Amino acid sequence: MTYDLSKSYEMFERAERVIPAGVYGTRSPRFAAFGDFPPFIRSAQGCRITDLDGNEYIDFMCGFGPIVLGYSHPVVQQALVEQEERGNLFSFAADRMLELAETLVARFPFADWAMFGKNGSDVTTLATRMARANTGRMKLLVAAGAYHGFDPWTVPGGFGVPPAHRSELDQFLWNDVTSLHACFDRNKGDIAAVMICPIKHDAMHDIELPSQDFLSAIQKRIADEQALLIIDDIRCGFRLNPMGASHVDFGLTPDLVCFGKAIGNGQPISVLMGREAQRDTAKSTFFTATHFFAGAPMAAALATMAAYDAEGAYEQIQSAGHMLREGMTRAAQRAGVAIRYTGPAAMPNLLFADDPGFQRGRRFSGLAARRGVIFHPCHNWFISSAHTPADIAQAVAVAEECFAIVAKEIASGELP
Amino acid sequence: MTYDLSKSYEMFERAERVIPAGVYGTRSPRFAAFGDFPPFIRSAQGCRITDLDGNEYIDFMCGFGPIVLGYSHPVVQQALVEQEERGNLFSFAADRMLELAETLVARFPFADWAMFGKNGSDVTTLATRMARANTGRMKLLVAAGAYHGFDPWTVPGGFGVPPAHRSELDQFLWNDVTSLHACFDRNKGDIAAVMICPIKHDAMHDIELPSQDFLSAIQKRIADEQALLIIDDIRCGFRLNPMGASHVDFGLTPDLVCFGKAIGNGQPISVLMGREAQRDTAKSTFFTATHFFAGAPMAAALATMAAYDAEGAYEQIQSAGHMLREGMTRAAQRAGVAIRYTGPAAMPNLLFADDPGFQRGRRFSGLAARRGVIFHPCHNWFISSAHTPADIAQAVAVAEECFAIVAKEIASGELP
Repeated sequence: MTYDLSKSYEMFERAERVIPAGVYGTRSPRFAAFGDFPPFIRSAQGCRITDLDGNEYIDFMCGFGPIVLGYSHPVVQQALVEQEERGNLFSFAADRMLELAETLVARFPFADWAMFGKNGSDVTTLATRMARANTGRMKLLVAAGAYHGFDPWTVPGGFGVPPAHRSELDQFLWNDVTSLHACFDRNKGDIAAVMICPIKHDAMHDIELPSQDFLSAIQKRIADEQALLIIDDIRCGFRLNPMGASHVDFGLTPDLVCFGKAIGNGQPISVLMGREAQRDTAKSTFFTATHFFAGAPMAAALATMAAYDAEGAYEQIQSAGHMLREGMTRAAQRAGVAIRYTGPAAMPNLLFADDPGFQRGRRFSGLAARRGVIFHPCHNWFISSAHTPADIAQAVAVAEECFAIVAKEIASGELP
Repeated sequence: MTYDLSKSYEMFERAERVIPAGVYGTRSPRFAAFGDFPPFIRSAQGCRITDLDGNEYIDFMCGFGPIVLGYSHPVVQQALVEQEERGNLFSFAADRMLELAETLVARFPFADWAMFGKNGSDVTTLATRMARANTGRMKLLVAAGAYHGFDPWTVPGGFGVPPAHRSELDQFLWNDVTSLHACFDRNKGDIAAVMICPIKHDAMHDIELPSQDFLSAIQKRIADEQALLIIDDIRCGFRLNPMGASHVDFGLTPDLVCFGKAIGNGQPISVLMGREAQRDTAKSTFFTATHFFAGAPMAAALATMAAYDAEGAYEQIQSAGHMLREGMTRAAQRAGVAIRYTGPAAMPNLLFADDPGFQRGRRFSGLAARRGVIFHPCHNWFISSAHTPADIAQAVAVAEECFAIVAKEIASGELP
């Protein structure tokens, strides 16, 4: 018996009348496997989400990253409830802001200060402003295809954005030292900063870890140009390193680091952290918004880090991620389906060989969703500490069944 | 006895070590009355906030707008707790998204669809993208000095923003029909949209309602140019009109309307609403972020609108606002201090005559804060339905005392 999503898609049809495209952006079922993925979620607990038909799924998207301890984690929820009893948003900063900034500065030796936003984009854009103001130079260098948010300067496609608003930006190819040097050379003297994610995790592509040559070249050229290094750790933070900051394992020395997603376990908060050398620039940068100073997401972030440390969440995530990688790789082999399972254990990405249009991926993901497991076909997955060995085993068993169906459909020509 | 803020400012000194400027942006005590305003808030209830020294204040900032029903409103908090028990952020949209979009489209006859962000800036910027994509033209016309958010194209001062990222923008003077026509004339053929707030509510200035001539000229020129009219109702929404959309009272016909602040009574949500004619553009506009699809702020928005209607919040706010206006004006007259008390009853602004540096305003606000009332010296205030006649009377009594001190200090030359 596979899942029935009748009510879910009845609601989606209703949604299409009052919301453009029903659901827009990366959460759209169209970005995943339309008809098979749940368009709306009613509730969640641990590593499981439940849709409007009452179907329960083991979820490997974790809210697209934030849910690092599992949904409705008791320690985080308790902190949230306590703060909400005092209040969330006030006319001045919640006192939690001080507590959180002190905790973060103590946790991350590279940083001397913290500033808080809501969206990841709030702090990636803030970092670009600080780098430009601090250096007096304009050019920002990024890896081609990297996602740094939805703000006009970086939103994929740039639909509706004046071309001029996307200027002062240049790109190099990930892990391509020649391309990197060429990019530095052609912008020499005008480079404010390089912004990179710790790993290449572009949607619809294999994940690629950085080569040591590539990272060394970045650090060397940045030092020569006296430009700043900005790490966008929004997607990787708290999954690649036991303290949370991914750059540490890659031997990088950033000037500014952006966090978001996992730091609040589902509550909206993003963070920019920086060094003493940028403090005066930070003081001069007008950065404000209604909800930046709210206490509940800050209380959630404090509780998330405390529980993450106390429960050994990092180790659990690695262990679950390794088990999933082994299980998925073996299951695909058994079915005789060629896949590429890339990325760190905590943030894997599964793509099918010879699948440029993602038909195989979408079919596999759709089959798995109908059997109670959310494997996204074209975006990296996220593991949480709530994924138990039993959950992983159940997910792998479903995957095995679905790989076999895909193998049969490829063999029969039903799938390209 | 006036309030002691020793612990509050001890904490602020600590904050200066780990947060640039201690608190940045509009929530900084430096933007208000440094030394006298509480830098951090511990809790809030109704119309009152409590600082780290335990001082309680009648608060006329309402979180800079969002708190339209009072802090910790039971109906909103109940909805929030119920949604948090189900979960806030999921891997796909919370089902509340459909419920909220349907409620909003039913509530606002001008609109056919809704999209959701966190910050007000998320949706003002989205509106500019849609207008440009929809018209194929680039120029955005705004009123000089108007605040439309902290995104690079509009952030006050533009510190750290490449000048090119602030191009394709032109300005006219508020209520100045000649300036408006000149602005349209010099951008003729390339105008995507005009974005205005329903009233001029720039910080550090008197509030100015729009003249009918000015609004008629905007509508006429927009129609001639086939440009779009974007209303930024983020600050005014749910305070100027009983249904919530301010443009209705000004006879405007907008294409896109931005809401935020009051719609969530303190939970982070912003909304862009638009018409059928922009639906296809909206479908094509990549707009996504981790927290846009979270259920708790949507549940809060639904509860806020329900309670707002059921409790007659609009009428209570008007009544409290009128009482405050009368009381403050009379108190200043009695003390012989010349002030300008401008703006709608629900969003008043108090500035002192002959006070270009805001010294009189800051002194008055500091004195009032030390006596338990938050009157901001250079930003408009906000009234909530939790401000009772007794609260207003108490606040006016404090104001009377403070006006008298200011009058004396002006007379003695202590204050310029």
